Amino acid sequence: MGQRLAILGAGNVGRSVAELAGEYEHEVVALADSTSAAVDSEGIDVTDVVERKRSGDDLGETAPEAVFETDYDVLVEATPTTLGDADPGFTHAKRALQTDRHVVLANKGPVAERYDELRELEAGSAGAIRFEATVGGAIPVLSTIEDSTPQAVTAVRGVLNGTANFILTRMAAEGLDYEHVLAEAQDLGVAEADPTFDVDGTDAALKFVILANVLADGGFSLDDATVEGIQNVPGSALELAAEDGRTIRLIGEATRDGVRVSPRLVPENGALAVTGTRNIVQIETRNAGSLHSSGRGAGGPETATAVLSDVGRLPPL
Amino acid sequence: MGQRLAILGAGNVGRSVAELAGEYEHEVVALADSTSAAVDSEGIDVTDVVERKRSGDDLGETAPEAVFETDYDVLVEATPTTLGDADPGFTHAKRALQTDRHVVLANKGPVAERYDELRELEAGSAGAIRFEATVGGAIPVLSTIEDSTPQAVTAVRGVLNGTANFILTRMAAEGLDYEHVLAEAQDLGVAEADPTFDVDGTDAALKFVILANVLADGGFSLDDATVEGIQNVPGSALELAAEDGRTIRLIGEATRDGVRVSPRLVPENGALAVTGTRNIVQIETRNAGSLHSSGRGAGGPETATAVLSDVGRLPPL
Repeated sequence: MGQRLAILGAGNVGRSVAELAGEYEHEVVALADSTSAAVDSEGIDVTDVVERKRSGDDLGETAPEAVFETDYDVLVEATPTTLGDADPGFTHAKRALQTDRHVVLANKGPVAERYDELRELEAGSAGAIRFEATVGGAIPVLSTIEDSTPQAVTAVRGVLNGTANFILTRMAAEGLDYEHVLAEAQDLGVAEADPTFDVDGTDAALKFVILANVLADGGFSLDDATVEGIQNVPGSALELAAEDGRTIRLIGEATRDGVRVSPRLVPENGALAVTGTRNIVQIETRNAGSLHSSGRGAGGPETATAVLSDVGRLPPL
Repeated sequence: MGQRLAILGAGNVGRSVAELAGEYEHEVVALADSTSAAVDSEGIDVTDVVERKRSGDDLGETAPEAVFETDYDVLVEATPTTLGDADPGFTHAKRALQTDRHVVLANKGPVAERYDELRELEAGSAGAIRFEATVGGAIPVLSTIEDSTPQAVTAVRGVLNGTANFILTRMAAEGLDYEHVLAEAQDLGVAEADPTFDVDGTDAALKFVILANVLADGGFSLDDATVEGIQNVPGSALELAAEDGRTIRLIGEATRDGVRVSPRLVPENGALAVTGTRNIVQIETRNAGSLHSSGRGAGGPETATAVLSDVGRLPPL
């Protein structure tokens, strides 16, 4: 059933959601970034608005706050992830729920840092929250857990940061050191100019914290995670691992008891040794053994498919 | 939301659905095999009834047809797969839809052989059909395609028969011939006394036909599939493959244009070279690259989780 989407955030993910919405028979009634908004209750001209963004112009004539005055069904929160108070993303979600609208998040902050509060707001709203896009990009992780029922899932383990995985894959393949491969990754656009959250494990940890919140129905935030990144993995460690038929990956694990992210030895040809920017999750279940899902964990269109998948699963308002 | 399930079929799958239903907060109001039924609008005593089945006794005092007179929300069709007219499974599903009830199938016959007719019956009913359990056991294949939208999926490829995969894995690992490993598989209960449908590719083909029907919204039946099984794969072929870093698996592929199942060479350490009875699907998408999902493709509890996952996704009647 076609929904009217109000999209906050006009980066890769926000723009891709706008561009693909029509394919899923949804209407984009608003697209906003931090300085301006394009708003049209009949549906904005997505191609035109995205072109303006690419040219460095304002998206439209309206202030971003105007988005909340529009007639929309689903707020898509795709502004940059922030930690701690998770604002402005958390407050955006709160406003939508308080006016009985749905919220689909691509922004990890609110569901990693203030999960319990968000669920409380949802309980008092006619709207629902969904957040598949916050974990594993195009890979259907959260919907798989939801359909199996969270109670039937005992643990989720895997590789959920493509930048760190790319770096480790290249270090192992080429015998190059971390600094060299990081520079290469930045040239390719696989790592940001400021790659901190990717290489220090924070990005992966946020995702596994979200998973722990889903398994345990809340109670976790980033502070609860034990996190170690890849910045100190020397090339020699990878060579040593290879002599033993192993390699090193940044592996995270979430259970009802906690979250841990760190570089770990894994069998070279095993499921966890995904290569390049690919992600993988292993979902351990009580009744059905272990389910492995791998795919592209990041990217505009990839993440947009997760957002639009969520939109499709929302109940009618 | 708890549903009342009427389960047809008391083999591994039917019994497992009955046993796990409570975990998902559903009530089992009927369980029937071909000769008798246990029926109770307040919910049958599952432990007791399953015990009777295991002891070789009748499930209950009622004739199987009585199930259709019960007050139920969802018919779970878990009777053995039949080809051609796909009866009695097809007629069971038809009766439920004609009385505005939901149908969740574990039986491949109706959706492989008479898909278009089933969808027509669904269109005229308040009930819906779901059939995750017919493809890949515990692996969420159909729901992943559904959420991505079938239009966004270009192909589905993979290993969907665990018996054939086990046999090929063992032949390669031990250098044994087909007949020897088949006997071993039968001893282990991995292959049936009559293993024909598993080793001649029919079981895999039915699953890929179902996938083609989902991608193309109908039009396919088993007769449309090009099928070759594993009975003629000699041990020498596997040795030759190994010298080249490859192995052989029974690979199926479904696109909007057709279905093909045959033994194929695959890279020894690649994603398609799953081992033992494990299954894998590769879902090729337009916007999000390739998603790989692997897990247990068969078994009572495994298949039951797919059935119960479907029940959870049914709209209220």
